[in-house]
Amino acid sequence: MGMNMTEKILARHAGLESVSAGQLIFCKLDMVLANDVTAPPAIKEFEKIGKPVFDNTKIALVPDHFTPNKDIKAAGLAKTVREFARKHQIKNYFEIGRVGIEHVILPEKGIVGPGMLTIGADSHTCTYGAVNGFSTGVGSTDLGVAMATGEAWFKVPKAIKVVLTGKKPKYICGKDVILTLIGMIGVDGALYKAIEFAGEGVAELTMTDRLTISNMAIEAGGKNGIFPFDEITREYVEGRVQQPYEPVAADEDAEYEQVVEIDLSKLTPVVAFPHLPGNTHPVSEIGEIKIDQVVIGSCTNGRLEDLQQAAEILAGHTVHPDVRCIIIPGSQQVYLDAMKAGYVETFINAGAAVSTPTCGPCLGAHMGIMAAGEKAVSTTNRNFRGRMGHVDSEVYLAGPYVAAASAILGRIAVPEEVK
Amino acid sequence: MGMNMTEKILARHAGLESVSAGQLIFCKLDMVLANDVTAPPAIKEFEKIGKPVFDNTKIALVPDHFTPNKDIKAAGLAKTVREFARKHQIKNYFEIGRVGIEHVILPEKGIVGPGMLTIGADSHTCTYGAVNGFSTGVGSTDLGVAMATGEAWFKVPKAIKVVLTGKKPKYICGKDVILTLIGMIGVDGALYKAIEFAGEGVAELTMTDRLTISNMAIEAGGKNGIFPFDEITREYVEGRVQQPYEPVAADEDAEYEQVVEIDLSKLTPVVAFPHLPGNTHPVSEIGEIKIDQVVIGSCTNGRLEDLQQAAEILAGHTVHPDVRCIIIPGSQQVYLDAMKAGYVETFINAGAAVSTPTCGPCLGAHMGIMAAGEKAVSTTNRNFRGRMGHVDSEVYLAGPYVAAASAILGRIAVPEEVK
Repeated sequence: MGMNMTEKILARHAGLESVSAGQLIFCKLDMVLANDVTAPPAIKEFEKIGKPVFDNTKIALVPDHFTPNKDIKAAGLAKTVREFARKHQIKNYFEIGRVGIEHVILPEKGIVGPGMLTIGADSHTCTYGAVNGFSTGVGSTDLGVAMATGEAWFKVPKAIKVVLTGKKPKYICGKDVILTLIGMIGVDGALYKAIEFAGEGVAELTMTDRLTISNMAIEAGGKNGIFPFDEITREYVEGRVQQPYEPVAADEDAEYEQVVEIDLSKLTPVVAFPHLPGNTHPVSEIGEIKIDQVVIGSCTNGRLEDLQQAAEILAGHTVHPDVRCIIIPGSQQVYLDAMKAGYVETFINAGAAVSTPTCGPCLGAHMGIMAAGEKAVSTTNRNFRGRMGHVDSEVYLAGPYVAAASAILGRIAVPEEVK
Repeated sequence: MGMNMTEKILARHAGLESVSAGQLIFCKLDMVLANDVTAPPAIKEFEKIGKPVFDNTKIALVPDHFTPNKDIKAAGLAKTVREFARKHQIKNYFEIGRVGIEHVILPEKGIVGPGMLTIGADSHTCTYGAVNGFSTGVGSTDLGVAMATGEAWFKVPKAIKVVLTGKKPKYICGKDVILTLIGMIGVDGALYKAIEFAGEGVAELTMTDRLTISNMAIEAGGKNGIFPFDEITREYVEGRVQQPYEPVAADEDAEYEQVVEIDLSKLTPVVAFPHLPGNTHPVSEIGEIKIDQVVIGSCTNGRLEDLQQAAEILAGHTVHPDVRCIIIPGSQQVYLDAMKAGYVETFINAGAAVSTPTCGPCLGAHMGIMAAGEKAVSTTNRNFRGRMGHVDSEVYLAGPYVAAASAILGRIAVPEEVK
């Protein structure tokens, strides 16, 4: 029996010829990630062990959740991370202003790459499947141990194969693909399973699409969500990923517990209703839902192409008087590139607030929290009750096209309505 | 006996031929201002009165302190202001993303002008003295009554005349002037007094310098801080202030309780040590003070020229590894202009975080709060204990040149050290 992509990466990092679903293994880690919320408890666990860090080039610390520090508690958390990074000379520590949201900057800076194994004390660590890596979220305790040992245990997950066919219509983006998938299989449809993408439709997806899709594998319960290595991957990682990397491909006879097919040509812009990412509805069928806020950004949709899509829609329009539109580039590089491309000017002319990179409103941390009764369309990844503020506020998840069109019209809308 | 500028504006708005210091008067108001922190209690008082607003074109509501909403409580405050603005059709309500910090945007948009009388439920309302207006901060109760009546009572203040002479040396800005003045007369040196600027040196000060200086009149205890109307004022307000305005000039025989002289040519870059704005020291004499954070922005120094000064220093440099540098344009217009001028690119290339307009860290609200033991150089207006975060953090006030130089060197520095 052959192996799928996930199994190949895990086997390689466990020093085994092969692994199969259900097997418990110990793996060497290529990268270990934590942020300002999860690093402090991980550091506490790490310090109980009393060893040095396993490799100061293989730990990434990114204060992005409550930063620039939203309050005194957040300042204390960031300080803990900063002091740890200095003490242990952590190479990939990224200070405020240098460089942005963890899952945007790790791929962007080539810190993660094909065939690599990454764990992160953040559930959306699964993002790096987009570049043909295995990556998954862990708890802070596991992360603290990993910082000392460079290893972690895994149960090899069963796998779901998602076969993509057809061509993306205009105004369809990665977010529509992943929300549609979660709508099909449910938020526990891939519980502790690998999601592996395949099919001719993969070539239709830009790297930004893939990063968005892999990012939300966890929203279907997935252990990871991985794409095959192709020309688009090669183009993205070449010159970017500095360490040697070895892509993986699924064997012809790799075992999948389930196969799901998505014909990209059949997709329409969708939105996930409160309070689950799987409450997916075509925007064309939802009637009038007035909104108070639009958020465009986050580790899910905070990349240049996402901002390009938002700018394409917002150009020449203004944000609806009843709407606050908050746009957050995912990294300083994205910010700079968006500025040079004129997107930021478009946003400001439209009446949007453009923030410095931060996770901010996505997790209800700051920079756009909602009051009781308010509704947001957001390109972020979770719409759990109270996620973006008051327990009686509502988050509707969508891609940048839908979010931008909704900002203009003050209700959830498809891009065609304003173009 | 003639009148000074302050007396002339007050007399005119009281419908009196003349007024003199100590007199209690009722004045008609040209503009009434509140923000997301002060408007909600003002609205509560207003609603007790049970009358409509006196004039929906003469009320300005600017949610800028805790916005974009930093938490659920802030979201509730902003919602209260928004709903009030909708209900009463307040013309000058400025939503998040449209347009910025109150004391930056009111002059910028020509909502305040020469000879006008403005009260605001914010202590730095005194800013508009820069454009030859009388403006002062009031409590939320007074403001709530004013929203219903369009009137407020005043005790005509005694006045201090600040005679400016000489030419500004390079790297001296308005902040150095006002910090030097407060250092001379103390934080209660002008308690309930008008500060009136005069002398040939006035012509040496740009409108940005004047806005910074008037903004901090309150830090010397001043009721207001007013500049004469000259060519620089005319150039700034023409085409900008839409309603008719009538400048005021002090009579030759106007009475001043005290005269203070400042020779601009003798000024050196200064910094106000914790925990009072009057703890002024020449930067050249302070020795090595390491810092953790730099904040450039606020109603005091968040204008285009302030950012130009910061960019001039930061260009080609990077922020010190131990420093977070947070730069906050005061308005969307400033943001846009700074972007077009290349300043924002300079800041991002230097490793600074550039935020959407907000008061944010100035008052310890969000967007750069300090942990225990941390020190900041900030272009904001107050360095009271715990103002920017933990009670054991410290704020050093300075102008943009000094702040930017300090960001590069990681210690409080003069611009010449990096140019």
